[in-house]
Amino acid sequence: MPKLILVRHGQSEWNEKNLFTGWVDVSLSKIGEAEAKKAGQLLHEQKVKPDVLFTSKLSRAINTANIALAQTDRLWIPVKRSWRLNERHYGSLQGLDKAETLKTYGPEKFQTWRRSFDVPPPPIEATSKYSQKGDERYSDIPNDLVPETESLSLVIDRLLPYWQDEIAKELLEGKDVMIVAHGNSLRGLVKYLDNISDADIAGLNIPTAIPLVFELEPKTLKPTKPYYYLDPEAAAAGAAAVANQGKK
Amino acid sequence: MPKLILVRHGQSEWNEKNLFTGWVDVSLSKIGEAEAKKAGQLLHEQKVKPDVLFTSKLSRAINTANIALAQTDRLWIPVKRSWRLNERHYGSLQGLDKAETLKTYGPEKFQTWRRSFDVPPPPIEATSKYSQKGDERYSDIPNDLVPETESLSLVIDRLLPYWQDEIAKELLEGKDVMIVAHGNSLRGLVKYLDNISDADIAGLNIPTAIPLVFELEPKTLKPTKPYYYLDPEAAAAGAAAVANQGKK
Repeated sequence: MPKLILVRHGQSEWNEKNLFTGWVDVSLSKIGEAEAKKAGQLLHEQKVKPDVLFTSKLSRAINTANIALAQTDRLWIPVKRSWRLNERHYGSLQGLDKAETLKTYGPEKFQTWRRSFDVPPPPIEATSKYSQKGDERYSDIPNDLVPETESLSLVIDRLLPYWQDEIAKELLEGKDVMIVAHGNSLRGLVKYLDNISDADIAGLNIPTAIPLVFELEPKTLKPTKPYYYLDPEAAAAGAAAVANQGKK
Repeated sequence: MPKLILVRHGQSEWNEKNLFTGWVDVSLSKIGEAEAKKAGQLLHEQKVKPDVLFTSKLSRAINTANIALAQTDRLWIPVKRSWRLNERHYGSLQGLDKAETLKTYGPEKFQTWRRSFDVPPPPIEATSKYSQKGDERYSDIPNDLVPETESLSLVIDRLLPYWQDEIAKELLEGKDVMIVAHGNSLRGLVKYLDNISDADIAGLNIPTAIPLVFELEPKTLKPTKPYYYLDPEAAAAGAAAVANQGKK
């Protein structure tokens, strides 16, 4: 029964400062590094042994994976990275303070941009210092594929081909797969696997750096039972904290 | 002009204890972690920008690469790992103290095992706790390919196919390639690139965690000038320290 292990990156410097991040490549905070270490210890203690690793192209996910695997004896597993696992692009909100944005635009727009399924924030200008147009790390795709903004729906559109072509292939070979990625790319994947409605997905908050495990039927890759966290109590507390973001 | 950047892993816990390591998967020491960080800072300061990373399957090399790249903005580059970049297998010497071994066997045998080109140490027993037979990380190759001992000559024999098939391909596409590996796998590669004789290679000591750069002719991949270190003074001091191992 292949396992799919999802890990949201640890706290970043901009999570800590309560800024919209999206595709901006910020580092883990000290807390985030400690969270990543804890994630690795959970994997090690509970003998969850990924055979292959997928990450986004963003440093906070890659560092979370590196720090976590260093706590296990599995640093050697193959790794693949893709922009398709990146965080949702937050458009012109990237770099803005969440509490300020809430105050400026009001709760309705704020909540729509954060949690509506298919309304993206206003697009970012290519000249903004927080735009990723022309970023060398995306030079392997046509430049116009680099988003200017995304809704969760658009994230799922660009995520699913990677699931189907690359990730599913490993699972269908019977391998246990770990994906270290972001709040919204992982929400998109959970929505797809658990067939969660467009309306209900707004209520799903994935906590940082607590491995979430799906056990999948070997041929269809449908979940055989509800997913579980390796540390359920910490996960419940963490999800509540995410839900309260912007309310400080 | 494609660049080839070679990095020997930082000091490991067993380098620190002066033990023969080979394929035993030991961790970096605190000094080794600091060395890896310094290597990354050198890359960053001198704007040496690898497009792709190759590592061995051993944690000390992988951690060196991860720590170094975290000092740059290039954690996202693709990475491939292979047993063919592993350290020389030290046979039954794995786990033994270098100074003790020198005392027990005398300087002639000791120096033959360490630096002769084609005399491997006695093979390790499959039942030894320091044998890698059956180690899951090598389950992608036939178990009888996992060495019981190796000379530098045997290292080169298993290294070159990987150079030819995988590493050269990236360089021929014009990419700058970084390899983070081990004293002997890197000596083997330098011997090949610089056409160093079997006798002379004994005198080449590569220091830990100081990036060594080859600039290669784009089609033949022959060096266009002598290789250089990003920190030549530290490299000279480090090479002298390696040469003195076992003499403490």
